[in-house]
Amino acid sequence: MRTLLAGGTICTFDSSHRCIPDGYLGINDGRIAFVSNEIPGNFNPDRTIDCHGDLILPGFVNCHTHLAENLFKGLMEEVNFEGLFYTTLFRWESLLDPEMVYWGSMAGALDALRCGVTTISDMYHHASATAEAVSEVGIRGHIGQKILGFALKRPPHQTESGIDYNFDFSAFSAQLDAAVEFASAWAGKADGRITTCIAPHATNTLNREMFATIADRAAAEGLRIHLHLAQMASERKAILSREGMGCVAFLEDVGLLDRPVLGAHAIFLDEGEIEILRRNNVSVAHNPVPNARDAAVVAPIDRMQNAGVTVGLGTDAFEMNLLNTARFAALISRVHTGQPDYLPAYDALAMATIEGAKALGLEQEIGSLEAGKCADIVVFDLSSLNTQPLDDPLKNLFYYGDVSNIKYTIVNGGIVYDGRNFSWAKESAVKEELKRVSIKLRSKIQQLKRGA
Amino acid sequence: MRTLLAGGTICTFDSSHRCIPDGYLGINDGRIAFVSNEIPGNFNPDRTIDCHGDLILPGFVNCHTHLAENLFKGLMEEVNFEGLFYTTLFRWESLLDPEMVYWGSMAGALDALRCGVTTISDMYHHASATAEAVSEVGIRGHIGQKILGFALKRPPHQTESGIDYNFDFSAFSAQLDAAVEFASAWAGKADGRITTCIAPHATNTLNREMFATIADRAAAEGLRIHLHLAQMASERKAILSREGMGCVAFLEDVGLLDRPVLGAHAIFLDEGEIEILRRNNVSVAHNPVPNARDAAVVAPIDRMQNAGVTVGLGTDAFEMNLLNTARFAALISRVHTGQPDYLPAYDALAMATIEGAKALGLEQEIGSLEAGKCADIVVFDLSSLNTQPLDDPLKNLFYYGDVSNIKYTIVNGGIVYDGRNFSWAKESAVKEELKRVSIKLRSKIQQLKRGA
Repeated sequence: MRTLLAGGTICTFDSSHRCIPDGYLGINDGRIAFVSNEIPGNFNPDRTIDCHGDLILPGFVNCHTHLAENLFKGLMEEVNFEGLFYTTLFRWESLLDPEMVYWGSMAGALDALRCGVTTISDMYHHASATAEAVSEVGIRGHIGQKILGFALKRPPHQTESGIDYNFDFSAFSAQLDAAVEFASAWAGKADGRITTCIAPHATNTLNREMFATIADRAAAEGLRIHLHLAQMASERKAILSREGMGCVAFLEDVGLLDRPVLGAHAIFLDEGEIEILRRNNVSVAHNPVPNARDAAVVAPIDRMQNAGVTVGLGTDAFEMNLLNTARFAALISRVHTGQPDYLPAYDALAMATIEGAKALGLEQEIGSLEAGKCADIVVFDLSSLNTQPLDDPLKNLFYYGDVSNIKYTIVNGGIVYDGRNFSWAKESAVKEELKRVSIKLRSKIQQLKRGA
Repeated sequence: MRTLLAGGTICTFDSSHRCIPDGYLGINDGRIAFVSNEIPGNFNPDRTIDCHGDLILPGFVNCHTHLAENLFKGLMEEVNFEGLFYTTLFRWESLLDPEMVYWGSMAGALDALRCGVTTISDMYHHASATAEAVSEVGIRGHIGQKILGFALKRPPHQTESGIDYNFDFSAFSAQLDAAVEFASAWAGKADGRITTCIAPHATNTLNREMFATIADRAAAEGLRIHLHLAQMASERKAILSREGMGCVAFLEDVGLLDRPVLGAHAIFLDEGEIEILRRNNVSVAHNPVPNARDAAVVAPIDRMQNAGVTVGLGTDAFEMNLLNTARFAALISRVHTGQPDYLPAYDALAMATIEGAKALGLEQEIGSLEAGKCADIVVFDLSSLNTQPLDDPLKNLFYYGDVSNIKYTIVNGGIVYDGRNFSWAKESAVKEELKRVSIKLRSKIQQLKRGA
């Protein structure tokens, strides 16, 4: 199958930052055949898609999310976020079953495609259910099953002297085995759309022995690592108290950073730890919207980027709008740094595309529009009034565009969303099932509350 | 014409903060007849609109914008914003003619309706053209014609000792006359959808004598005032140097605050000036997105709100998405104050509705859903995956909703946008004309550059 995207401004996000006005992009069997201002003579498309007046970008890469946590949407806002972690969330998550995770992931994956996101990096419970959903709806997924240092039914709790994490090596060990088994079973599945990793939850919810074990096992299995890193004040406090160092320093000390690591959040760290991130080539998933929403904090991405750390973008739980996230990252970082010229449109959108791909170790496959890469593409129709008049498509999209401008979301060369409808024809079934399992979950939460 | 909105969660934003699940809202001749959990026996609707599963809010009030500045979209981002004011923008605006302003305003007004905005508060050049556009597309407008302290063709310029404002009382006086004439001619027009005011540009771009003249004239004519207030560091510096006091203190000193005043931005002020705002009942239009985008600053709305100052929301130029603006206001203010509980969903949406109405002095007519008020309403369909599962419609809309959730925008009881189409059937004509006048304007800008 050969597809031609004809016309449109193509911003490649390649190493030369090439943008081609009135360009052509050819797709052959799911890969990009060429990106050019003319059609090569030997390319005979089976179908041609008119993109005149459109902006063509690499599909967005959401570096850190939990598709199925969607199920808790509306229950976790405007609460004591840090407190919720240790009193409520783990207990709620113990109520999840694979069916709930499957439908939560289906809903999240469809919503991601609606937002132009072609790759999600997910870590959660019952990861096989998420992988099945990713496989079915046609998005790309970098997926790890969450590993905790305790049994989910016996989570951390607050004591007079602080949080007791209830560490349990045997419970951990079983979770690690299951996570490795998941990673092995799903790697390369769904026509190569699924890649896998090992996903320990956070620096504080596992202990030194557990991280040392993970480091060894990940090395033996050749697996990348995705974890929460310096997300919360209580997390840094716990590691300082336990190890006498910060979260990032601890991970280096225990040998975890010998593996490729993606750390989500990276808020509470010092200059020395930014240097540790750099010298170990650790990538960071920046999640500015939930960080501001839940905890009124913003990660020092300016200092990380200046140090040469790769920073991608994540939405974390509950939403999938990475364009909004990129814009928010720029605006809040301008205020945070006091620099009105910080994160211009191109740089912020690079975080949503090629930098995100690098953060997942997938920069040879996705993140930019170059011959040979997977044809993961988002096409924006900029003829609407919100982006007109149009002098600079990239700037107008970034500052004034919204989901209504999305015309096509394309994964592996196939149109999976056309701005109104998903190629997955069962959207209404997903809504019904999401509703059903949400009601079931809420009923279990009520039972848990009554029992407590 | 009697219309019934049947079903849906109705958040009234009335003084008791009443939200009615599965409610009914009746409209009679453009006004709200009742808001209730049952249909009064004597109400026989001509048409019934099914709103089951929807969220019904007062139409959004955009307190500070310049619809026609749309024409410069894409030309003013990622530049030295403060510098642009004194070197470029006024010169560009001198190139505008009523036809350009008309089509720029048409585009802006339609985009506003697409975003659920039912009232815009506009101040710009050639205000009659904006009023005509507002009249035609069916939005509500609070409009003032901009007044400067100099001739637009001979704007301020940078000298070695600072900015020379080129003050010219005679040029000012002619603009004031024209602005009063506009205000008088258009007040109450378009079935009462248009209200008018006097709009001096900013505290620094007119001098003491001019403000004193405006104060007298506004009192004589019974007109409200809308101006830029403490928006820029250079503005505060100019007034400090010129008057030995801050921008707000200056306006009190010159007698302007005896009139009802809406000040846009209110960034650069001290605690004493917040007290001046309070005791004079000055309202503020908070424009967090452009402030962050262009100047990396955020206004101290927490301190103003704590003092009891009415704070509405504005988008300023280039975009009309007030839902995004409300969310951004909450998120950035949480980071700014370090308080994760600052501006919860209800309070932020109140700024986009009833507080905005108060800021315009229109709280008897719009801003909440109460019997007797104008039927300015926005209906959100929350059945989409981005807002599901749905425990709390208001929170899910606020944190996860977007323009795709808008089902109806209603002004004076009439559906002016149905989520896909405008009742104004000439959207494509507006796009064509916007393009035409934009090209004309850009050509004139090029001529200006060549001439300079």
